[in-house]
Amino acid sequence: MTEWFSRGELIEAISANDRGLQYGDGLFETIAIRDGELRLWEYHLARLRKGCETLGFWMPSDDVLLEGVMHALRESESTEIAAVAKIIITAGEGSRGYGRTGNTPPSTLFAVFPAAPHQAAAYRDGIDLALCRTRLAVGSVAAGLKTLNRLEQVLARTEFAETELIEGLTMDADDNIICGTMSNVFFIKDRMIHTPSLDRCGVEGVMRRHVIACLEKQGIATNIRRIKIAEMSDFDEVFISNSQFGVLPVRRCTDVRWGVADRTREIMSVMADNGVAECLS
Amino acid sequence: MTEWFSRGELIEAISANDRGLQYGDGLFETIAIRDGELRLWEYHLARLRKGCETLGFWMPSDDVLLEGVMHALRESESTEIAAVAKIIITAGEGSRGYGRTGNTPPSTLFAVFPAAPHQAAAYRDGIDLALCRTRLAVGSVAAGLKTLNRLEQVLARTEFAETELIEGLTMDADDNIICGTMSNVFFIKDRMIHTPSLDRCGVEGVMRRHVIACLEKQGIATNIRRIKIAEMSDFDEVFISNSQFGVLPVRRCTDVRWGVADRTREIMSVMADNGVAECLS
Repeated sequence: MTEWFSRGELIEAISANDRGLQYGDGLFETIAIRDGELRLWEYHLARLRKGCETLGFWMPSDDVLLEGVMHALRESESTEIAAVAKIIITAGEGSRGYGRTGNTPPSTLFAVFPAAPHQAAAYRDGIDLALCRTRLAVGSVAAGLKTLNRLEQVLARTEFAETELIEGLTMDADDNIICGTMSNVFFIKDRMIHTPSLDRCGVEGVMRRHVIACLEKQGIATNIRRIKIAEMSDFDEVFISNSQFGVLPVRRCTDVRWGVADRTREIMSVMADNGVAECLS
Repeated sequence: MTEWFSRGELIEAISANDRGLQYGDGLFETIAIRDGELRLWEYHLARLRKGCETLGFWMPSDDVLLEGVMHALRESESTEIAAVAKIIITAGEGSRGYGRTGNTPPSTLFAVFPAAPHQAAAYRDGIDLALCRTRLAVGSVAAGLKTLNRLEQVLARTEFAETELIEGLTMDADDNIICGTMSNVFFIKDRMIHTPSLDRCGVEGVMRRHVIACLEKQGIATNIRRIKIAEMSDFDEVFISNSQFGVLPVRRCTDVRWGVADRTREIMSVMADNGVAECLS
């Protein structure tokens, strides 16, 4: 099992009174480490900052967070080129009841995991997606954020656990496509890029933000809007994004198939030029 | 801090890899203990069973759960007449990622807390409620259940943390009243009883179920339906229910005030006859 660190110490476990366990009262980030560098670190910090504001708790300084990750990386003695760092911040220990008590310090945990093995075929040929029955509730106070309340993603992920699929799309209760269980999704039609708005539910991935920013630098606007499931077959190409794997072409979801991913491949090339090298490997 | 027990042992802490912490992948129950008896135990078990089915994980036997609570009660050496037991069941330890891995045994934790002090004035005079800005997301896969994903309740509760109020009402995104942060709500008009439907969000309290069942035994049907916030001022009386305090009259929420709680007092008398003695004390 993974080793976790807190305040520079290896910890075996956390208090059962921690509000992270009791109520999911916390946030997390999963950061790609490539050649010892934290990729999109500023974007992770920005999302964490927004999360701390929404949840109303104190955020450790950027330096403390960076040192926490780097310490866990050193301790992991990882010699791999690619690794994954995870940060968890919770509201700390509490007594019974939803209300937070006084000035409890937050719990901050760090761990480093091996990266998932690189799947060259997925980048080359694209992947197939499940379409999950589990719907995302609409109007979440934590829309866009990566809180510790992740049951929707857990239940959606279990739906295709017995298959070879690595990802599935989720919809909201109104038949809008929102995101994958662990990724965001982009659709291409006549060279226009579309991606679902995440103002009512879903997670705003850092790689989604990076894709949108990189495309913008190329003069390409991304159309962020509601996208109904019925529209899915209208698009020419589809790809998903995630902090760990970057961008992957999608060739199929249920009975909808998309064509050769020429435009997606151009975008993957742009991303490779912007620090997401695995998109071209 | 509260002591927690698992498998008959005092535990200092739980693994940081527990999916209860990582994703809120679990359930809990909070049971009133009165004179050594677990109140509404069958209702707690029923909700836990429904939760385990929805979340797709194995439920410990009723006997194991009962023994877990009674063990924690003995260890707490509580000599109080009233106490609170809490059970947490999580999907157990896991590796990184939303998908559950293999046949991980669930984590089952038990603790006993002192009951909140009895507030005779609240039963006699009624209480005032906050109206929370935090909305409950609509279409939750866990609607009605008591999962470890409780950020909405936490954020709603923090809104009136600095006041003397002990409870606040929450609405969904469509302006329907749903429940309190830790209670359910009933409205009375012309001797008809109404309570919000909880099919899209909110928690189905065991005391709500008990109130509905006790009223039904008296030949009084409860009208379970959507109730808009704009309707609030139409009602004659309001009360809230919760496993710990039973039933409490409400005299006010924001600028809406309700009359003398004669009908509520009749219902409290019925509840006192049905094992919720504090309603008449």
